[in-house]
Amino acid sequence: MFQTDSSNALTAAVLIIGNEILSGRTPDTNTAWIAQKLSAQGVELTEARVIPDEEGAIIKAVNELRAANKYVFTTGGLGPTHDDITADCIAKAFGRKIGINAEARKVLDAHYGAGQVTPEREKMAYIPDGAQLIHNPVSGAPGFVIENVYVMAGIPRIMQAMLENVLPTLGAGKPILSNTIVSSLGESVIAKSLGELQKKYPQVNIGSYPHYRGGVGSVSLVLRAIEEGPLSKATEELVDMIRKLGDEPQAVGLQAEIGNL
Amino acid sequence: MFQTDSSNALTAAVLIIGNEILSGRTPDTNTAWIAQKLSAQGVELTEARVIPDEEGAIIKAVNELRAANKYVFTTGGLGPTHDDITADCIAKAFGRKIGINAEARKVLDAHYGAGQVTPEREKMAYIPDGAQLIHNPVSGAPGFVIENVYVMAGIPRIMQAMLENVLPTLGAGKPILSNTIVSSLGESVIAKSLGELQKKYPQVNIGSYPHYRGGVGSVSLVLRAIEEGPLSKATEELVDMIRKLGDEPQAVGLQAEIGNL
Repeated sequence: MFQTDSSNALTAAVLIIGNEILSGRTPDTNTAWIAQKLSAQGVELTEARVIPDEEGAIIKAVNELRAANKYVFTTGGLGPTHDDITADCIAKAFGRKIGINAEARKVLDAHYGAGQVTPEREKMAYIPDGAQLIHNPVSGAPGFVIENVYVMAGIPRIMQAMLENVLPTLGAGKPILSNTIVSSLGESVIAKSLGELQKKYPQVNIGSYPHYRGGVGSVSLVLRAIEEGPLSKATEELVDMIRKLGDEPQAVGLQAEIGNL
Repeated sequence: MFQTDSSNALTAAVLIIGNEILSGRTPDTNTAWIAQKLSAQGVELTEARVIPDEEGAIIKAVNELRAANKYVFTTGGLGPTHDDITADCIAKAFGRKIGINAEARKVLDAHYGAGQVTPEREKMAYIPDGAQLIHNPVSGAPGFVIENVYVMAGIPRIMQAMLENVLPTLGAGKPILSNTIVSSLGESVIAKSLGELQKKYPQVNIGSYPHYRGGVGSVSLVLRAIEEGPLSKATEELVDMIRKLGDEPQAVGLQAEIGNL
């Protein structure tokens, strides 16, 4: 996404596993959550996929995404019911065996109480060989990490807690800085100058996002960069450009920076 | 997703094109919207992907998804600015030329007024050769269909209007019927019986979705099928099963059907 990224290998993909998303029954909120956390840590999300609870689809997607990215984060399919097949599929994707993980079994014993770990609950202690557990402070049953794949629960509250445990163990890139400038000019009015600005600042990613609120059109121009210098310069030029085109832009986001222009 | 689906070729994929989703800045709502509309029409969504505004990523994803599905729906990247590269990339994915489409040019003339179609606005009339236009009643600039790929705007309001124009032209499968049963039993308590029920009714897709609201755990059991007979029978057995396990389940969704149990 950034032309300065060639040396920055901190890329990631998100893999959402769940029929309920594809049927439209449940809106996916995990992708946006993970995306925000990764951006703040300077990790670049290159792709997100939603796939069904099907072995072939899971194995194929995991293997494609882990080959192409430094990190893969999966959500969904870790529970005790028949449609929870993620752990088995991850083991198959890596060609590893799966069995009862002693540490995970202890966690379940502690969570449910001695003698309360039925075979159904014990299913949640089946972890691929060689994986490290991801602690689940909400409902006990752990996620796990195997090589560069982070396997987390689908319930947002549990996924979020697992991700908090994982983030400090990831690499941290330079955080991506951004400025947002809102203008009431139409996209087609600013398109030419904006394109020239993008060419002048290849190290700044400039996105143009039109929207309608209450029937009134406006556009959010989002400048994102790793280095503050080019970001500030490009933002300043963008503000000048919009004023020359006859509009007084509004700054949103890093207002302190914009205020210094 | 359904074992009865082998003869049902009405599959679809969604491709969301936009850096703003991957950065976490904008939550994607288009996937859920399209998923619901397709489900209601009996079209099965097999995958959704979010990718950046990058030529290589767009061409690769379009070609993979169109080979694997009856329909592909893309959103994003159709505007006049430098980051709107979808039409060019779709042309390249199909190995077709792209140029000013006379019909699209007329639409822009009518929308902006004679003499108001600047080169930036005219960019939105560039359509791959042989594509059919998708009418845009909101902001003029059309989407297009090329073979089995439906290329739509990213702004939800415009995408939704374009999709409404497209839906009647798609095949319609048998709509997917569903019942939802909510129980306060833990997933691990019902897992064994639920797995047996799934084995007994392979033509019904049974999903188990636990959730926490106000600190109280419960589980939504969603039964989905194309045929009403097996769906009703499986739902009836599920209700009996939960009662035997000591809970009085709640029915959500197709309550009329549940009331007949």
